[in-house]
Amino acid sequence: MTDNTKEIFIAGAGCIRVGEHWGQSLRELAAEAALKALDSAPGIKPECLYVSTMSSELFAKQGSVATLVADQCALGPIPACRVEGACGSGGLGFREAYLAVASGMVESALVVGVEKMTDLLPSEVTGVLSTAADQEYEVFNGVTFAGLNAMMMNAYMAKFKATREQFAMFAVNSHKNAVNSPHAQHPKEISVEAVLNSPVVSEPIRVLDCCPVGDGAAAILLTSKKNKSSVKVAGLGCATDTLALGDRASMTELSASRLAARQAFDMAGIKPKDIDVLEAHDAFTIMGLLALEDLGFAEKGHAGKFVEDGRIGMGGELPTNTFGGLKARGHPVGATGVYQIAELYWQLSGKAGKAQVNGARYGLAQNIGGLGAVVTATILEGVK
Amino acid sequence: MTDNTKEIFIAGAGCIRVGEHWGQSLRELAAEAALKALDSAPGIKPECLYVSTMSSELFAKQGSVATLVADQCALGPIPACRVEGACGSGGLGFREAYLAVASGMVESALVVGVEKMTDLLPSEVTGVLSTAADQEYEVFNGVTFAGLNAMMMNAYMAKFKATREQFAMFAVNSHKNAVNSPHAQHPKEISVEAVLNSPVVSEPIRVLDCCPVGDGAAAILLTSKKNKSSVKVAGLGCATDTLALGDRASMTELSASRLAARQAFDMAGIKPKDIDVLEAHDAFTIMGLLALEDLGFAEKGHAGKFVEDGRIGMGGELPTNTFGGLKARGHPVGATGVYQIAELYWQLSGKAGKAQVNGARYGLAQNIGGLGAVVTATILEGVK
Repeated sequence: MTDNTKEIFIAGAGCIRVGEHWGQSLRELAAEAALKALDSAPGIKPECLYVSTMSSELFAKQGSVATLVADQCALGPIPACRVEGACGSGGLGFREAYLAVASGMVESALVVGVEKMTDLLPSEVTGVLSTAADQEYEVFNGVTFAGLNAMMMNAYMAKFKATREQFAMFAVNSHKNAVNSPHAQHPKEISVEAVLNSPVVSEPIRVLDCCPVGDGAAAILLTSKKNKSSVKVAGLGCATDTLALGDRASMTELSASRLAARQAFDMAGIKPKDIDVLEAHDAFTIMGLLALEDLGFAEKGHAGKFVEDGRIGMGGELPTNTFGGLKARGHPVGATGVYQIAELYWQLSGKAGKAQVNGARYGLAQNIGGLGAVVTATILEGVK
Repeated sequence: MTDNTKEIFIAGAGCIRVGEHWGQSLRELAAEAALKALDSAPGIKPECLYVSTMSSELFAKQGSVATLVADQCALGPIPACRVEGACGSGGLGFREAYLAVASGMVESALVVGVEKMTDLLPSEVTGVLSTAADQEYEVFNGVTFAGLNAMMMNAYMAKFKATREQFAMFAVNSHKNAVNSPHAQHPKEISVEAVLNSPVVSEPIRVLDCCPVGDGAAAILLTSKKNKSSVKVAGLGCATDTLALGDRASMTELSASRLAARQAFDMAGIKPKDIDVLEAHDAFTIMGLLALEDLGFAEKGHAGKFVEDGRIGMGGELPTNTFGGLKARGHPVGATGVYQIAELYWQLSGKAGKAQVNGARYGLAQNIGGLGAVVTATILEGVK
């Protein structure tokens, strides 16, 4: 990558509560979040639109969703583009919006993440989620997405002697934080015992190791103009890995996550110890623990202890998933990456309400597509 | 849009023949085109990847296709992003690759368009194509994508007294050119009578007014470095319209097409009369005629006469769809926009073989998503 000195800021953000929105269609969910983001930054008109959606085709039988959202928000004839990288779609959409502004072709860009998942039966949702994995090499043989995560969790537990309790504690932390989140799907605390005693999904993964299924939408407005309570996009990273888990050298780390984080830290000119708040992609608790190691916060094999020691708690050195994470804020797949960055924006601009981490300057969001097949790392900096 | 003075070039391109590729999977088709493009530009390594696909979810039950292609081409850990705007995905992917290079974050970007359509039954393909239209407002009522085009063709014929023969002549021209195209799905001539006597699809549209269904892949490498036989990206435009046809002021023009073309011409600093070769999105003959008007070549209502007078022929003033267009080269939906721009690149770098338009300097490609819901216009300039 060449040097890029242009400064780009977040001017506003909005989202809806994640949940079962059976009374609203895909376009309505997206527009509600988009208009909230635009209302939060009066006077700035987006010059292009990105919409992040994992699978509107399978969830809603609708393509061309970026056009749909432009139309519904009365933003037409704005250039509009849908971006997809499975559950990593949101981070990718934010990245494209950044690149558009950085190119100088536009001064402002809106990114909207949206997914409407609950119109399908749970068994159908499992099928859609499996499209994030390698159909020909792995899914064809019968494995589910949870099953692939279970293989990684088993491998990690065998290699590093992490305990089931340590995994559960990651989920417990996310739920504890969600209580203070106005848009969380499950704003209630759970206990380690509840996680351990919840039904098995795919051994050793239990129901409460998994994020829920939900509908949601979030939006962020980027601009090349600095504004009041500005938050700067300080670092961006993006890397890929094999789609099939079986093609990888290691089952106990995500190399794309490590690379994306390194790129983002290099661009921001900071180190992991400088991060004040982390949004990690905890679709399953194994992904939460791996995030702490791959992003550079915990030593390899020690993420369980890191969690057990309370270091990811609101009073710890690295408050993590401050609005509930995928586990408790919810994981409307293609929208999640946009939620994460919006949450960092609220933290770094002092707008996080009861979830506020006082004095936070740098935040990092990690968004994963597939089993780490594509990962984006985004570092924001508050610039009061 | 602000001024953007950065010069960006096409360094190479590749594609496979459009057809029924039952023996190759989606990833194999994409990789073949991608590796051809890379082979055509030795020494240039792409720093990021865009993959344009309309609906790998419904056609192949596979998401995260950009990662899949990166993996199959051994390009990992390259940043990879899938871009979608229905049949306009290819033009949008090219635009994103351009923006990435223009941003200064990378010096080179590869865009791959791919679609594998023929594994489904024709009736299923019709269902997938309808996801490009508004599901809730129009498709739900039973109309197909061909049916929506038929409404526009009826409206146009009633308003401007265009003849069935004039529409047929657009298809005849595309087929005539395809004979000289090494990658066309149907490289054979057809007659006006054959079009008029072919079976009705949706009155007044007949089978030979429609592009075929096919598998295909095409790829283009962009770079900020000028090279031998360089072709410059001179102008880009992109605009949207309502997804539902019924929401529009006019059924006899595509406003997004007009706007996208105007943006591209303004950026390139040229006028329609400067264009030496046109690639128009003739998914149906009505779209071909509208393209001539919306892009500024024929006066409103006179496109039929323009075609009848032979002005779009290889010996005419505006050689159009020189490799066969959607009608005869084929229309692997998400890949089409990349094919079009690759074909212009071959024309403007003197590599078009038997299809060569001698002395061509400027070329324009128009790529349409849905019924003109999103349109990109791309102007290339040969800079020997």
